[in-house]
This record gives sequence, C-alpha cells and structure tokens, in this order.
Amino acid sequence: MTSYPSSRFQRVLIVGATHGNELTGAYVVQKLQRSPTLAQRPTFETITLIANPKALAAVRRYIDTDLNRCFRPQDLQDVTRCTYEEVRSRNINNRFGKDGETPADVILDLHSTTAAMGLTLITYRRPFNLQLASYVQQQVPSVKVLVVPEPEQGYAGLRSICGLGCTIEVGPIATGILQADLFQQTETLVHHALNYVDHANQGKMPKGNSELTVYQQIGSIDYPRDEDHQLRAMIHPQRQFQDYKPLYPGDPLFLSFEGDRIDYSGDEVVYPVFINEAAYYEKGIAMILTRKQQILIDPIEPR
Amino acid sequence: MTSYPSSRFQRVLIVGATHGNELTGAYVVQKLQRSPTLAQRPTFETITLIANPKALAAVRRYIDTDLNRCFRPQDLQDVTRCTYEEVRSRNINNRFGKDGETPADVILDLHSTTAAMGLTLITYRRPFNLQLASYVQQQVPSVKVLVVPEPEQGYAGLRSICGLGCTIEVGPIATGILQADLFQQTETLVHHALNYVDHANQGKMPKGNSELTVYQQIGSIDYPRDEDHQLRAMIHPQRQFQDYKPLYPGDPLFLSFEGDRIDYSGDEVVYPVFINEAAYYEKGIAMILTRKQQILIDPIEPR
Repeated sequence: MTSYPSSRFQRVLIVGATHGNELTGAYVVQKLQRSPTLAQRPTFETITLIANPKALAAVRRYIDTDLNRCFRPQDLQDVTRCTYEEVRSRNINNRFGKDGETPADVILDLHSTTAAMGLTLITYRRPFNLQLASYVQQQVPSVKVLVVPEPEQGYAGLRSICGLGCTIEVGPIATGILQADLFQQTETLVHHALNYVDHANQGKMPKGNSELTVYQQIGSIDYPRDEDHQLRAMIHPQRQFQDYKPLYPGDPLFLSFEGDRIDYSGDEVVYPVFINEAAYYEKGIAMILTRKQQILIDPIEPR
Repeated sequence: MTSYPSSRFQRVLIVGATHGNELTGAYVVQKLQRSPTLAQRPTFETITLIANPKALAAVRRYIDTDLNRCFRPQDLQDVTRCTYEEVRSRNINNRFGKDGETPADVILDLHSTTAAMGLTLITYRRPFNLQLASYVQQQVPSVKVLVVPEPEQGYAGLRSICGLGCTIEVGPIATGILQADLFQQTETLVHHALNYVDHANQGKMPKGNSELTVYQQIGSIDYPRDEDHQLRAMIHPQRQFQDYKPLYPGDPLFLSFEGDRIDYSGDEVVYPVFINEAAYYEKGIAMILTRKQQILIDPIEPR
C-alpha cells in the first residue's frame, strides 16, 4: 500500500449501498472497483466499499435495521447488538473509524432519494466540509448544500465515523433502478470531490467563493396520521417535487385522501427537502425543514 | 348481500396491493373500504381486496414470490406450493375465481410503475375489455391501452382468474410512496370503470368510438449483462421516461457504465413501455415492446 506521509488526508473512502436499494451509488462504486485508476489521485489512497452487500443483493434498504443509523459510539461498543447491520457497522468502524485499521480521513457516501433534491451534498458544518462543498459547487453550479446536525444532535450515519466528507444525494429516482443521468452526475461529483482533496493536500487550492448558500436542517414534519399511526394525507400536489423551494405560512402542505387541503401552520419561511422520501415514511418524516443561509466560509488553509 | 339477478355482471372486485410496495392502489382500496358507498353502483356488488397484506405491511413487492405470477391454473391446484403468496393466490382464487364462493365477473387491479406510463389500462384482448377501455378513454383522453397476451401465452396474474376487467397502471412513481395526483387519477379511472359496468348492465351504453388505439405487447428486451448476469448498461437517457414513444431501428437504447451507447438493433418500429420498471430488473426485462394498432371494437352489445 502506498503511503503519502506529507499529506493531510491520506485515505478517502467512497461508499455505495449503505442503503441496498439505492443503486446509483452502488454501481458507481462497483465501476470504481473495476477501474480503480478512476478514483486514484497523487496524494492519497482511495478505498471503495459496498457497505451493505446483503441489502444490495436483496435490493432492499436494509435487512434488519437501517445501517445508516447504526454508528452511535455507544452502539458501536455494544457487542450485544447483533443484527446484520449492527454487526456490519462495527466491522466498518473497526476498519475505517478513527481507531480502525485503515482510518478514513474523508468519506464520500453515495445515496439517492425519491425526493427532487437534484444534486445535493449533505454534510456537517465544519470548515473542510464547507470548502469541499463550495469547490464542488463551483464545478457544478446546480449542486445544493444541506447542512445537518452533528451526530450527537442528529443521527449517527456511516459518515459520522469520520466527520469529514459528505453524502452525495441525488434524486428524484425510484429505489431499485438506475438512471444514466444521475449515475454520471454522481460520478462527476465524486471526481470533483477527490480533486478537491488532492488540491487541499497539495496546498494549491483554486481561489474559491468566500460565500456559500447552505440549507441548514432545523426539523421535520410528519404526515398527518390517525390514532393508529396510519396515514391520513399525502404530500400536496403543489409541494411534491418542490424541494428547496420556500414554504410560506399558509401554503398547502398535504392533501387528505378525502381531498381536503392541509396547510403549513408554521410562522417562518422554510425550505423543505426530502419531500416524500420513500424511506422516511417509517421514520415519521414527510419532509425535512431547512433554513436557507448565506455563510462565510473560512479561507482555504494550506496544508 | 344484495343480488342483481338481471345483471350480466353481478360482482366487481377492486384489488389493491397485489404488490405490497405499490401504495397508490392499496390506499385507494383502503379508502373504498372506509367509504364503500363510493364504489357502489345500482346493478352490481363491489368487493374490495388488499391482495397481499403482509407485503403491504412490509412495503415490499412480495414476501416470498411475486403474487401476480401465481395464478396459473395448474399452480392453483398444486397444494404442495406453499409459500405465502402461493397460499394466498389459492385463497383468492377459491373466493373470487370462476368456481369460487363469490366469483368476480370483473376485476380492477390497481398497480403503479416506476416507468412513465401515465395512466394505462392493461387488459386482455376481449370485446368487453376493449369496450371498457374505450369508454374510460373517452372520459379521460390521456389513458393508454396496453393489450397483453392471454395467460396461456403470457403470465397468469391475479386478473387472469376472471379475464374481464383490467389492471390500472399509473406512473412514474417510486415504490413505497404516494403521489396525490396519481392517487386521485387512479380513483377517477376506477369510478369510470365502475360506471361502465353499470351502464353495460343496464344496456344503456353511451355511443362510443368504434376505433381504439392499443399497444399490443409483442416481446421484451433485457438489459445488456455480463456472463455473471450482472448489468453492463442502463437505459439510455434519451429513452428514459419515453414510454409509448416510437423506437426506431438504430435509436439509442442503453448506455454502458463506461459511457458507450448501445442501439436498438431490431428492424421494426416498436413502442416500448415499462421502461426501467424497478421490479423487472430481476425478471430480465428492461422494457416491454409493443406494436401500436388501431383496432375496431365491437359495438356495445345490450345485455
């Protein structure tokens, strides 16, 4: 194994099939496994991982439990947790976590969504991540940046074992299918992200924007449900596929099965994302609410 | 139970969740179960059925095997077949089949697809079915009519236990989600179909078109695969979501993961449908090919 002793970032982990029915990332990773030179850069090692091979083979999000919710530090240390994904999360952490055999310095986790989120980078609010996102957005201006709470305040997904890097989330796309455009766009974002890490290692960053528009996650809304937790309504047609569009107080939000409109009762303009994501029905989430923010990003620091 | 002795069609069965992850039909049926008057008509009885409740609860197409492939007469009589769906298919046939307790005269089976098939009625080429389709299309002109082989030449889906009626197929929609527009459009098609049966029973059919455009299934194409049956390519971006559009010899059909275009090598203009349907990856079907035909439909026969 090559070593890059002078690099700040020595190892980038590219992950597909954290959810086994999100084929885009799985097939991008499998292509990189067939053609590893595509993901090689001069200053670091790139490793690829199919995170949940059993779920991928079954074309299901997970076998026993959502792998992307299995990485809380206390859970990783609890050896009594032994469903397929719980064991798998420990193995992944033992390999790529901070104290693992080959710790990842940066993680790119490739996902897809049934929501119309276009090309989104999901990340924690840390200087490196925002710089990475800003760089990728300069290359692909349609990219949106969704900032999520740190794992202690949010959920502990796979990328939380590292903290640097991002989830690449593309949609809308049904689970269980590939779409060539989203496949190629995911590839493009991966390559720009790898380039960014390489530039950062070499201390020769292109001068980037000092301002970045981010969507900061602030909460979520569930579907209207009855006393048995059964759905009473659907996303309103005027809101379906309207991710990143402003939601104003009084805007239509849901439509009941009987045809009654249910409006947004908040008092703040918010920007919903993950609207009608299939996997979130069971999590009690009809959409994630975000606040749109312009933030200053720290100047690129040389290594 | 009311009886309508003078009616040709005494019982209509409306089915949802033949596939448990196609929520549109499941929720339409559940609404009809809460408000049965919506599906009542003067001249026949309407019965509703959630065909695969276990798969619906799991939001999966099926538990053990595709229920909508379990209705071959010889299979229905083979009591050694005992997976969940095999048992379920026998029970359904014992209730609603020709020799069942309450045989269905007409079946409306509600499905959804990840392909851009809009509002499609899928049916066998029988005079009643074509008249039904023609009537519904008069009410909703965007409706397309897909004619599939009789079960002996094709597959034996749930509707084959009756033969009259149709599948209502709507899309594109991801599995595991609801979209309000498709929910309401499915409802509309169900109501028109029920009205047609009622009109037919009363012998007072509106004068309809004598010509009908149908898409006759003639075959299918699989994805390019390697020797291990793994995918080598995706639907070409120019063909994705282009259901019912003509495919000419030499048109781009697939795009390999490496970016190479693979063209349609047939010598006939065909009209693909079910393009990139998620559930058909495992069946070896990238798209169903059809021939577009103008057919004369028999005049409405009085009862």
